Amino acid sequence: MTTPAARPRDDPAALADGVRRGEARRVARLLSLVEAGDLAARPVLASLATNGSRAYTIGVTGAPGSGKSSLTDRLVGVIRSRGDSVAVLAVDPSSPRTGGAILGDRVRMGAHATDPGVFIRSMATRGHLGGLAAATPQAIRVLEASGTPWVLVETVGVGQVELDIAGATDTTLVVLNPGWGDGVQANKAGLLEVADVFVVNKADRDGVDATVRDLVSMLEFTRDASWTPPIVRTVATTGEGVNRAWDAVAAHREYLTTTGLLDERRRERVRNEVRELVAAHLLRVADARCQGPRFDAVVDGRQHGAVDPQVIAEELVAEILGIPSDES
Amino acid sequence: MTTPAARPRDDPAALADGVRRGEARRVARLLSLVEAGDLAARPVLASLATNGSRAYTIGVTGAPGSGKSSLTDRLVGVIRSRGDSVAVLAVDPSSPRTGGAILGDRVRMGAHATDPGVFIRSMATRGHLGGLAAATPQAIRVLEASGTPWVLVETVGVGQVELDIAGATDTTLVVLNPGWGDGVQANKAGLLEVADVFVVNKADRDGVDATVRDLVSMLEFTRDASWTPPIVRTVATTGEGVNRAWDAVAAHREYLTTTGLLDERRRERVRNEVRELVAAHLLRVADARCQGPRFDAVVDGRQHGAVDPQVIAEELVAEILGIPSDES
Repeated sequence: MTTPAARPRDDPAALADGVRRGEARRVARLLSLVEAGDLAARPVLASLATNGSRAYTIGVTGAPGSGKSSLTDRLVGVIRSRGDSVAVLAVDPSSPRTGGAILGDRVRMGAHATDPGVFIRSMATRGHLGGLAAATPQAIRVLEASGTPWVLVETVGVGQVELDIAGATDTTLVVLNPGWGDGVQANKAGLLEVADVFVVNKADRDGVDATVRDLVSMLEFTRDASWTPPIVRTVATTGEGVNRAWDAVAAHREYLTTTGLLDERRRERVRNEVRELVAAHLLRVADARCQGPRFDAVVDGRQHGAVDPQVIAEELVAEILGIPSDES
Repeated sequence: MTTPAARPRDDPAALADGVRRGEARRVARLLSLVEAGDLAARPVLASLATNGSRAYTIGVTGAPGSGKSSLTDRLVGVIRSRGDSVAVLAVDPSSPRTGGAILGDRVRMGAHATDPGVFIRSMATRGHLGGLAAATPQAIRVLEASGTPWVLVETVGVGQVELDIAGATDTTLVVLNPGWGDGVQANKAGLLEVADVFVVNKADRDGVDATVRDLVSMLEFTRDASWTPPIVRTVATTGEGVNRAWDAVAAHREYLTTTGLLDERRRERVRNEVRELVAAHLLRVADARCQGPRFDAVVDGRQHGAVDPQVIAEELVAEILGIPSDES
């Protein structure tokens, strides 16, 4: 608890209470700690976890320029028209968080920037092990704890990290464009696997029919029968088709709920998160033990005696695991 | 020691002695155990390691069809003409070991197939953690222990695994062709980083001058001053230039020896090997602990109480490391 970010006002209990009350300043503060991988976030997250509140999470992914931000903006509008509050997490693995990104929180989503029912936050961290893939579910839990019933997670691109992040939501929207989003490319990019709903945005452009046809034919071969992602045509800039996109999200939510998949998926996500945290932690232990003069002395010293690296490795593992070498 | 491959004749001491005496049958047998990641290889490798004999290792890598096998064949001829024995390890990460590959051991290198001073072995394993990247240095140590002064490690392609394997030798030859091997592509493929010697094979074809020029200009920007990889033109099918290629290897060996880099590089390779073995072992421990009904019960049970995954992960890590949770 001696990190720079751990200042007195980061009293875990006070921070947790503020987040539970939905105080934007506290929520933003905790998200900053999470984004930085600050150890000060740990006890707060732990105490918030006992808070049972859950949000429905919607991922929005697709190629840069496909109109994800505009679509997200419109979906926020739909949610607000229902009287619900909503949080938007804009995740960018490709760039470190900058003043520009922070400014972006205010200027983008212009229509809702002043709406107290809309919380907008961009995240771009390589700050700790697992980076955004590890920080995003923690950030989502912070937003859940703040009481918001809806969390939209928007990613900038279609890299593996973005797909992992967007795919780790309850419903994942994949945004394509006429021409760009032909089934083959979508398939290549792994979008078919993560998509629960396809949104063909900029549907007022040429080639939209071909793109939809491509998707339909690809889906016939690549998806199981239990849920076939609907394909919705939108023009996010005008709002055309956005309500149909929302209806598709609602239909998928209904499907997950009635089949019991919603709970099972959320459990599996938690299991995966734990798995990755454990693996990351053990790798960090291995890295720490396998460098520096002490390590070099062990290896080089033994190397003169020409001992099998496997033997040295097993001794180190046994030392790390605190068990007899022959059991490692 | 209860694996199928661990038959009585795999008495570790007998196998180790046979390898030390350079008995091809024993060497092949131990390489098979190493290739399969068979635990029966462990004690043999451990006892062989105390054998101090060292070979000089030469990696030969490059795109498929660039003539690596023909060049390797010629280099074997040069080494044999010096009266030394030599071992060739042909490594193929892309294909599982097949009867074809075994047959290949006999039919390829036709000129030397019947020469008892030449040991040829192909390896293609995904059999254990780390796969070939982990098995290759073990196989090289087996060949070293058999007393051969030269080990040629030939890889099939220019994937990352191949580059790691070929780069983990004392001298790495990168084989290019006129046209294919322009500096830009070589740079993209990461070949500039691993190359100690560039061999432009099929130098009787058009475009060889342009390829050499490309390499020269790329090297000016990408290499430190201490060693600039010589660029040798060869026609392996006729043997043209092969002696110059060998002279380049000898020059690089001289450079490594006089600067003391040879010993330092070998030490660093052992350190890296130990690091990777430790990391692989701990990841295996993490995987084992993070699956199955017991793990699911822990996570799901806690999830109903909505406990932070980080807390669960730290408890599991603490359990694995056998230390109090708050120290993990």
